[in-house]
Amino acid sequence: MSAHQPYTFGAGLWLFGQFIDRYATDAYGPPVSILEAIDRAGQVGDLVSLDINYPFDGGVSVWDIKKTLDRNGLRCHAITPASYSRTYRKGGLTNPDPAVRRQCIDMYTAAIEPARELGAKYVKFWPGQDGYDYPFQADYADLWKYSVDAVREVAASAPDMQFAIECKFKEPRTHMLFCNVATTLLAIEDMGVDNVGIVMDLGHSFFARETPSEAIQLAHRRGRLTSVEVNDNWREWDDDMTVGSVHLIETLEFMYTLRKIGWSDVILLDQFPFREDPVQAARESIQTIRKLDALVDRIDVPALRKAQDAQDALAAQRLVLDLFLG
Amino acid sequence: MSAHQPYTFGAGLWLFGQFIDRYATDAYGPPVSILEAIDRAGQVGDLVSLDINYPFDGGVSVWDIKKTLDRNGLRCHAITPASYSRTYRKGGLTNPDPAVRRQCIDMYTAAIEPARELGAKYVKFWPGQDGYDYPFQADYADLWKYSVDAVREVAASAPDMQFAIECKFKEPRTHMLFCNVATTLLAIEDMGVDNVGIVMDLGHSFFARETPSEAIQLAHRRGRLTSVEVNDNWREWDDDMTVGSVHLIETLEFMYTLRKIGWSDVILLDQFPFREDPVQAARESIQTIRKLDALVDRIDVPALRKAQDAQDALAAQRLVLDLFLG
Amino acid sequence: MSAHQPYTFGAGLWLFGQFIDRYATDAYGPPVSILEAIDRAGQVGDLVSLDINYPFDGGVSVWDIKKTLDRNGLRCHAITPASYSRTYRKGGLTNPDPAVRRQCIDMYTAAIEPARELGAKYVKFWPGQDGYDYPFQADYADLWKYSVDAVREVAASAPDMQFAIECKFKEPRTHMLFCNVATTLLAIEDMGVDNVGIVMDLGHSFFARETPSEAIQLAHRRGRLTSVEVNDNWREWDDDMTVGSVHLIETLEFMYTLRKIGWSDVILLDQFPFREDPVQAARESIQTIRKLDALVDRIDVPALRKAQDAQDALAAQRLVLDLFLG
Amino acid sequence: MSAHQPYTFGAGLWLFGQFIDRYATDAYGPPVSILEAIDRAGQVGDLVSLDINYPFDGGVSVWDIKKTLDRNGLRCHAITPASYSRTYRKGGLTNPDPAVRRQCIDMYTAAIEPARELGAKYVKFWPGQDGYDYPFQADYADLWKYSVDAVREVAASAPDMQFAIECKFKEPRTHMLFCNVATTLLAIEDMGVDNVGIVMDLGHSFFARETPSEAIQLAHRRGRLTSVEVNDNWREWDDDMTVGSVHLIETLEFMYTLRKIGWSDVILLDQFPFREDPVQAARESIQTIRKLDALVDRIDVPALRKAQDAQDALAAQRLVLDLFLG
Repeated sequence: MSAHQPYTFGAGLWLFGQFIDRYATDAYGPPVSILEAIDRAGQVGDLVSLDINYPFDGGVSVWDIKKTLDRNGLRCHAITPASYSRTYRKGGLTNPDPAVRRQCIDMYTAAIEPARELGAKYVKFWPGQDGYDYPFQADYADLWKYSVDAVREVAASAPDMQFAIECKFKEPRTHMLFCNVATTLLAIEDMGVDNVGIVMDLGHSFFARETPSEAIQLAHRRGRLTSVEVNDNWREWDDDMTVGSVHLIETLEFMYTLRKIGWSDVILLDQFPFREDPVQAARESIQTIRKLDALVDRIDVPALRKAQDAQDALAAQRLVLDLFLG
Repeated sequence: MSAHQPYTFGAGLWLFGQFIDRYATDAYGPPVSILEAIDRAGQVGDLVSLDINYPFDGGVSVWDIKKTLDRNGLRCHAITPASYSRTYRKGGLTNPDPAVRRQCIDMYTAAIEPARELGAKYVKFWPGQDGYDYPFQADYADLWKYSVDAVREVAASAPDMQFAIECKFKEPRTHMLFCNVATTLLAIEDMGVDNVGIVMDLGHSFFARETPSEAIQLAHRRGRLTSVEVNDNWREWDDDMTVGSVHLIETLEFMYTLRKIGWSDVILLDQFPFREDPVQAARESIQTIRKLDALVDRIDVPALRKAQDAQDALAAQRLVLDLFLG
Repeated sequence: MSAHQPYTFGAGLWLFGQFIDRYATDAYGPPVSILEAIDRAGQVGDLVSLDINYPFDGGVSVWDIKKTLDRNGLRCHAITPASYSRTYRKGGLTNPDPAVRRQCIDMYTAAIEPARELGAKYVKFWPGQDGYDYPFQADYADLWKYSVDAVREVAASAPDMQFAIECKFKEPRTHMLFCNVATTLLAIEDMGVDNVGIVMDLGHSFFARETPSEAIQLAHRRGRLTSVEVNDNWREWDDDMTVGSVHLIETLEFMYTLRKIGWSDVILLDQFPFREDPVQAARESIQTIRKLDALVDRIDVPALRKAQDAQDALAAQRLVLDLFLG
Repeated sequence: MSAHQPYTFGAGLWLFGQFIDRYATDAYGPPVSILEAIDRAGQVGDLVSLDINYPFDGGVSVWDIKKTLDRNGLRCHAITPASYSRTYRKGGLTNPDPAVRRQCIDMYTAAIEPARELGAKYVKFWPGQDGYDYPFQADYADLWKYSVDAVREVAASAPDMQFAIECKFKEPRTHMLFCNVATTLLAIEDMGVDNVGIVMDLGHSFFARETPSEAIQLAHRRGRLTSVEVNDNWREWDDDMTVGSVHLIETLEFMYTLRKIGWSDVILLDQFPFREDPVQAARESIQTIRKLDALVDRIDVPALRKAQDAQDALAAQRLVLDLFLG
């Protein structure tokens, strides 16, 4: 494939923070402040921007963050309000209590100003507590309406700001409302606003049993592709592993597809290296992505195109496997 | 819940035919002609209509079918062109060969007249060979365009006829293009025609890891719910088992949802009783549906509504489980 | 089925503690001390015994626990050493560092004395960090040897005490070594000791895609069934939901199987009611189990036996569904 | 890794036959006789032996097969009795009818003589119809006993012949009794005979959600590894795709493990190229295996060993990914 401007990389700041889960309740490592996490991100050496959770923990100001980003040569890529903490354990945008829904919407709205100040490209909705766990627990039409109305209200309040929804199949809920790309595109339609797009998370796409290269083109064709996050998993959970560690061929296909749709923006890492060094885990993923992208350079596009026009599985596979196998 | 007109039942005619798979290549039983299959359907005693495959095997005429249906007190509910036989093994609507795509479209178009003659409610698209098996095998945007264009062309050619797409996650392909309700709704939008809807198949919805009661409301809200088929499976394959045999609670929720959206049309059985008597298998499913619907009558709707307004899982569960457990 | 002594119920003490996960890092509720958790367990009213984690948090003594148990009319059913906290994040029994493996074995050994003092039936191995996350990460034969040797050593050190392994498919690791009943039975054989059995967790069995009624009989036939825990999930994760909330039919089959193998010991609840009241969640599960067990009383065993002898799916289903549907 | 004798390759003869499924009931291609299939296998050029179904269709004699194998430079690797045709649709070894069980056992016994005459290494049990579809359908202990007794009887009748069980998670049944490696090893133990082993099918291992490199070592350590078959799938069904097409990294790990355990026998292809040319599909898989095996040569074993001793996921991954990515 013809050459292109090399990709730049970002990361969710959580990659560099403290990890905890329901078993290691004393956490997988010591606490990490938001500013320390930014410093860790700076150590990676190849990151240009970060997705930062809001509100900022520990009384840290926009100014503190800006300074720490600057010191590390980093920018703010996105702001992600934490609508999944204890307050929102029964739902943020869809909480049964209208007062909590209001509080959640207000937190999103409050995030817009710091997002502007930090030069963020978008404010991200990751409504992980918005869904349900049990059959018969919820009226699905209500949840849909609450979600659509809430995102619309926030987005309509700041037409100059971009927003983006990161869909996921499940977790922490057993069912999340914005569960996959197609469903989220329908929800965005119902919102009727122009400034809401999709964060295409490669791992979430594996998890939702989508073909990521198909799903991202669906979002792109509808003009709703706002951001790209990458990682890997075993397809039954959001394991947030390093890029290419399980689905190497499909990750190459994803890199090829990024090239095809002309993606030129930052690629963000979304990982939870519970038992690994986060700086190293970030470096490994970046190295893998670059090497995969170099393989994309070597794809014989006319030959691949010919195989795909014929839907010739064996020819396409040979061509691709030989990139890996020589 | 308040009383309603009892449901009527239909079935896919294949339920009463010969089953075969890749192992029992000598089939699970002797051949069954299309007219014999209709007679078997008649023996169920509780069926009012059938979804019939087209072309009609064995040189059977529309007149023969009409007569046999009449004799059994049955109607034709839908016509489903068999776009998954050997001719279409590499795709029907999306075959790489334009001549085969044309042949497939022509077969669908040719099915419209017999559908009219038989008084079918709709012509069904079940494009099981339209998808892909391997990574990199196909250009997903091409497949999408082929599918959308083909369905649009057929539907536009007969504005008086209703059409409906039955989506499925996979099989016989490892990936099917119209894989779930949300994706199919997006495709229908792209078609830009009014007379294409969705066949909501309960088992396919389990298989796609949707929550069926959520998915059917999505289709209903958009005015695209054309038909309802039921069965059960183990959620990793389209096992086409009798209704309620695995997912009893979610099937009750589905029956409740049918009531909620005011479904008053036929409910169709879509089963493959490989090792069971098909007439008995149909009767068992109908009996189970009726008993589930009788449970729906006994739901304390204000109490359920209250639990759902509070998204109170335990209250909703207790209410529902006690219907089953006394 | 003929009458039997009513089941008694126990619970993992964690059911009544504080829940946390990687998103709600401020936890789903305030901290709960071990003694407070025991008091909560006492409020359920129907529990007789508890599975208690060791070491006891907060400097609580065996004496404190005994007193609090007594006050609540509860016994200690089992002791479960917490070999999944930060210290053991890279493995307990299989940690790459021999010193940590030793520390883990010593913790298990240290748990035997308090287990004796509290009259526990068994010390439980739940080695959730013992496994691997990535391809090529580990030498599987080494992990197997470490695990088998460690459990053997602990068990051999206290021939008067019973031990039991609770297997799970995964989590917190993406792959756990003792992943299902059959694999764990093979490991127990390799240990060559008499006092190690299996904790059959109904939810873990769903999660491992076993048929629970088949798996429990496998363990029972080999004389290795030490304990039974119950809950439910969506079969792709250990959701630890209330009993019967998803797999109602298979849970009835499990209750029928418990009767068949003559299970007369305590049935333990293993739940994580992140967003529900834990006391109520325990009560709901117990109520559901009792009602399911009452349905078991009503099973026409000769008729079921006849259907199963003929492997007649439709007859068996009708018989069972009508218990639920009237 | 140090050099080794190059692998030789075999295939299941079905790879070269006619494919059919429940949709393309007119089959994916024209009929292929058993002798024609052998000739097709000969065209691959790199095969040395075949797994052949028994009874031989179309009145073909052992002599005809021998001659055709010879002409193509092929040997008979194994004989697989077809205990999954219509006669055995409700079970072969576990059929509820004792007469059918007897017929099935007799068919297996009858296969021993032709297996001897053809110089087969083993007679294979692939009891695909032996399992169940519905909850409550069967008494699992009965099914286990029938299976164990039947295989024991056949094996005991010919102590000079090797037998091997090919386990699979499911299909054509929704649940198969010999569902995974660990369960099958337990069943073999219960048989108490020396001449029954396991066919380790890479794809079935993916399908059963095993880690293939872990499962094969389990069988090997117990001295029960009789044969190795390879292919790939999407891990939710036995898709029987070409080798390495989905799980490239785990397939490399499997090739590495074969080297580690000193596997020097034939590697058999087990594929169903429904829509591809079978000769080409076989060649592609062989080419991929050889190239993967060449990568195994290039593994820095001391470095990998060091990473695995430390269970260092990132180091192991880097080492392995760089084999693919340069």
